[in-house]
Amino acid sequence: MGSDSDLPVVEKAIAVLKEYGVPYEVHIYSAHRTPQQAAAFASGARENGFGVLLAAAGMAAHLAGALAANTTLPVIGIPVRGKALDGIDALLSTVQMPTGIPVATVAIDGAANAALLAVQILSLSDGDLADKLQAQREAGAEKVLEKNRAVEETYNR
Amino acid sequence: MGSDSDLPVVEKAIAVLKEYGVPYEVHIYSAHRTPQQAAAFASGARENGFGVLLAAAGMAAHLAGALAANTTLPVIGIPVRGKALDGIDALLSTVQMPTGIPVATVAIDGAANAALLAVQILSLSDGDLADKLQAQREAGAEKVLEKNRAVEETYNR
Amino acid sequence: MGSDSDLPVVEKAIAVLKEYGVPYEVHIYSAHRTPQQAAAFASGARENGFGVLLAAAGMAAHLAGALAANTTLPVIGIPVRGKALDGIDALLSTVQMPTGIPVATVAIDGAANAALLAVQILSLSDGDLADKLQAQREAGAEKVLEKNRAVEETYNR
Amino acid sequence: MGSDSDLPVVEKAIAVLKEYGVPYEVHIYSAHRTPQQAAAFASGARENGFGVLLAAAGMAAHLAGALAANTTLPVIGIPVRGKALDGIDALLSTVQMPTGIPVATVAIDGAANAALLAVQILSLSDGDLADKLQAQREAGAEKVLEKNRAVEETYNR
Amino acid sequence: MGSDSDLPVVEKAIAVLKEYGVPYEVHIYSAHRTPQQAAAFASGARENGFGVLLAAAGMAAHLAGALAANTTLPVIGIPVRGKALDGIDALLSTVQMPTGIPVATVAIDGAANAALLAVQILSLSDGDLADKLQAQREAGAEKVLEKNRAVEETYNR
Amino acid sequence: MGSDSDLPVVEKAIAVLKEYGVPYEVHIYSAHRTPQQAAAFASGARENGFGVLLAAAGMAAHLAGALAANTTLPVIGIPVRGKALDGIDALLSTVQMPTGIPVATVAIDGAANAALLAVQILSLSDGDLADKLQAQREAGAEKVLEKNRAVEETYNR
Amino acid sequence: MGSDSDLPVVEKAIAVLKEYGVPYEVHIYSAHRTPQQAAAFASGARENGFGVLLAAAGMAAHLAGALAANTTLPVIGIPVRGKALDGIDALLSTVQMPTGIPVATVAIDGAANAALLAVQILSLSDGDLADKLQAQREAGAEKVLEKNRAVEETYNR
Amino acid sequence: MGSDSDLPVVEKAIAVLKEYGVPYEVHIYSAHRTPQQAAAFASGARENGFGVLLAAAGMAAHLAGALAANTTLPVIGIPVRGKALDGIDALLSTVQMPTGIPVATVAIDGAANAALLAVQILSLSDGDLADKLQAQREAGAEKVLEKNRAVEETYNR
Repeated sequence: MGSDSDLPVVEKAIAVLKEYGVPYEVHIYSAHRTPQQAAAFASGARENGFGVLLAAAGMAAHLAGALAANTTLPVIGIPVRGKALDGIDALLSTVQMPTGIPVATVAIDGAANAALLAVQILSLSDGDLADKLQAQREAGAEKVLEKNRAVEETYNR
Repeated sequence: MGSDSDLPVVEKAIAVLKEYGVPYEVHIYSAHRTPQQAAAFASGARENGFGVLLAAAGMAAHLAGALAANTTLPVIGIPVRGKALDGIDALLSTVQMPTGIPVATVAIDGAANAALLAVQILSLSDGDLADKLQAQREAGAEKVLEKNRAVEETYNR
Repeated sequence: MGSDSDLPVVEKAIAVLKEYGVPYEVHIYSAHRTPQQAAAFASGARENGFGVLLAAAGMAAHLAGALAANTTLPVIGIPVRGKALDGIDALLSTVQMPTGIPVATVAIDGAANAALLAVQILSLSDGDLADKLQAQREAGAEKVLEKNRAVEETYNR
Repeated sequence: MGSDSDLPVVEKAIAVLKEYGVPYEVHIYSAHRTPQQAAAFASGARENGFGVLLAAAGMAAHLAGALAANTTLPVIGIPVRGKALDGIDALLSTVQMPTGIPVATVAIDGAANAALLAVQILSLSDGDLADKLQAQREAGAEKVLEKNRAVEETYNR
Repeated sequence: MGSDSDLPVVEKAIAVLKEYGVPYEVHIYSAHRTPQQAAAFASGARENGFGVLLAAAGMAAHLAGALAANTTLPVIGIPVRGKALDGIDALLSTVQMPTGIPVATVAIDGAANAALLAVQILSLSDGDLADKLQAQREAGAEKVLEKNRAVEETYNR
Repeated sequence: MGSDSDLPVVEKAIAVLKEYGVPYEVHIYSAHRTPQQAAAFASGARENGFGVLLAAAGMAAHLAGALAANTTLPVIGIPVRGKALDGIDALLSTVQMPTGIPVATVAIDGAANAALLAVQILSLSDGDLADKLQAQREAGAEKVLEKNRAVEETYNR
Repeated sequence: MGSDSDLPVVEKAIAVLKEYGVPYEVHIYSAHRTPQQAAAFASGARENGFGVLLAAAGMAAHLAGALAANTTLPVIGIPVRGKALDGIDALLSTVQMPTGIPVATVAIDGAANAALLAVQILSLSDGDLADKLQAQREAGAEKVLEKNRAVEETYNR
Repeated sequence: MGSDSDLPVVEKAIAVLKEYGVPYEVHIYSAHRTPQQAAAFASGARENGFGVLLAAAGMAAHLAGALAANTTLPVIGIPVRGKALDGIDALLSTVQMPTGIPVATVAIDGAANAALLAVQILSLSDGDLADKLQAQREAGAEKVLEKNRAVEETYNR
């Protein structure tokens, strides 16, 4: 994440990674305040065994792009809603990357989905993760179906 | 892609995949006109050996979300610029997904980056792709440096 | 509706349908979490005697489009305001449908109007509903006129 | 329509209505230049045998709302893209109606869908229209499938 | 005003008119719920001795346009901020009028300025109002200068 | 106007003023390049017999506000569409004035309406102008009715 | 600043200037309520020994532009978030200046950065300020690194 | 600049710098494709005798921020309009910087003003530049006054 103020958003990603048993590291690297550390982390990430990098940042959200500029690993960008502009600044700063340096962008404050996307990516070479994703998908569907049944009982007679 | 009118955008993705020697298939599945086919394709995609799904669509761009709803493979969404609203409708329709069903969104008309992101994802378990990505990244940098040298010679005397 | 969090919005529609004595069913079908159920419901809706489908969803609001893709009944979309972006994402995702698959979109959080629009549609072949609509319209006007009189008395001496 | 400059957009609606054999009338009524005529037309529409009113207008697009204020028939609004602001002004002016007076809004310049929505509405009490809609829906799907086959042959070897 | 919910905004206009001793009337006329009354009021306004009409409305704010369509008196539109979209819908619905039917639009919730603009208009043929405007302008400037002095004393030692 | 590039827009205002026989002056005063001249012009305008000031400017369109700050005459702002941002920058810069200094804002590039609004304002103390406005309004309506008849003949058999 | 309501934002700038020991003055000059004072201040600023002018204003934020029009000193604009529109009006009114009269614009409510930018500008001819900036930059980086270490200890086992 | 496609915009800055006789260098450094070179250039800029850095970039325009992160010299950001979104993405990516790392942002494609702002900054310790700025300002005003006279002669009889 780019700042410790992003922690409440980032914790939703951590919860998902824990749920799937995916090992992770959490860091604060700022594209603007500690650019060398951010670049060094990204540059060495593949070698250090990382598979996917997640970057959460707000406003002129450059962190995801700064990481992506220094690695060929997939980088997932999480635009964080700031005080003004309702997150559209972070969304556009994250997603509108130039050709050659993609950032996989998720919804504003969509940290849980960022982690889930990382799990989906890792599942390509990890059958267990693929199975867990499928099971969780079905469990998620079942939860909706349950709520549907509750609503149906309440409202449809 | 959701419509054959998206083909000019999609061809930029095809060119990248060819460049990296990544096998691919091209289909037109419309989230709205052929929803069953779109769902069926996505549902069987992992089993049929696909690794990453790319979806290009404009306006109320639902294709990426419709695929993502039917697979746990990573789905990359390419918002396509339409006649009105400059692509912001497609961008928001693609990226603002609810928790549980992520779509990895790239820039408006960013098909080349979508393909590159797919290659990055596949490179996690394919060292050759990783090497090619690194080589291409360096070649891309070299091209910028060359242009820089040309500009420097022209302007900085 | 696409999620039980949309219930407070949807209840405004239910109230209107009750007021007009129009039979209805309430369901939670998610375009992304239970896409088959959503498609199956829409596919069978005309046969099962439904006249109009109302779909409330937020963010990348695909539910109305997903229903419309599976039925030729009129589908009314209610964009629901989410945490970020003030509902503009849901509005554009709902209204910007491609040619061939219309969604009748109402205002952000405009569930009452969605229900009223459904009653208007049903009134084409139901003279009683047409009469009630007219009566309610007049009652609504009368309420404004009353408020006008109150304001006039207060402010115009 | 609110102005003869909207005619190119409106003709897409006429084409659809002709295709379905739905009788229609075309008028230019301006919410601002001929408000009495617009109101009179809407006030008498149900009595005069109209089922659905379509209103196309740009900029501060009030026509749909002005008709809806004077009838309890369903009114479909078509926001027309003007010179500035890419149609977002017409979209918001059409869709953001207050409680009590709904307008069924379609995409910017979405006249074909507006007509199709009207046909869907009329199909509720006209089995032939319902059948034609279903047939056209299938024909539309078939057209996409054909294009898909062509694309598959070209690109998937 | 279009609805009694606009009263808190409108009261800021009333306060200014009182301050200037300009006679006024307050009404609730809805462009959508009581369109005839709104049209009738505007149609007769010049004859009934009104000079300027002020219209406050939110969302698809048609009231100012509906009045302007029925009078050649100057009409001032006050876009009122609603629950969604932060008032941009009301602003565009009010200001983007077609050629021939102008609406003098002020800032979102800018009722005080709407009244002041009315006073400015009336001052063209009322020297006393012109003098009061000048005096108030100077008093307003003096208030800023005072605050400036206070700030200067606090911060500039 | 703020720049001679605004002339094509401003000429639409001139045409209207000529049509109504309203005497006018045309000037280029830039809020940023010739601020003293702009301020001086506005400061002396009432004394010099002006009734209404029209200001056309693009981008960070300050001209209307700069004039309004230096006079208590009504000032009408015409936001001019620039190369980027489709005129929304000029619209917001013109309309979002602080309390005490109103600007009567018309549509983007709406110079004809700005002039018409000026005529409406002047008509409050000029019965001939009021009559001409009414006549032109009726002529405008008649033109729409004629176009309506033409369209009706073409399309309604 | 343009109004005393901007004081909470402006105080963040004052704090930074104090921290760097840069002499400053604080004034309330309104581009619209006290335009002469604003212009006079800017006109004399260079002569009076000022180096950089900072201007904070909201809505149709003209203050920075009004100062810039009257001096060739660098002017830094701070768009202040108002009640509606989330600050986008102030941002566009401040940044979209015409050629010839630049305003150095910072983020919405970004007063601390405005002051820092002023210090950077002054540091070009003041080695001590340059050293302090470098030291503060390093201290800022160190603070992020510390937070990073805390986060790493908490989350990375 | 971030890409050679920005050259047409950047040349407007070069022209201004030449006009003022300010020595300059032109480089292509991409925040994403050659991040090390961009960082290295910025890190050494003060030492290498640079006074102000100008950065032109489009889309998710990170270049200005990337330079600012590596120097305490003032950095001026020029948002460049791309194919989609009319430059609002570049504007927000450039201006919405976090506290501690300011970027002085000018208008979309506002390269001439960026250069002028640089000259203003340098003029603080260079009386000749200050004099030239003043002379040019007056020449600019004179040009407007001339155009004004031409317009006055044409239109005001």
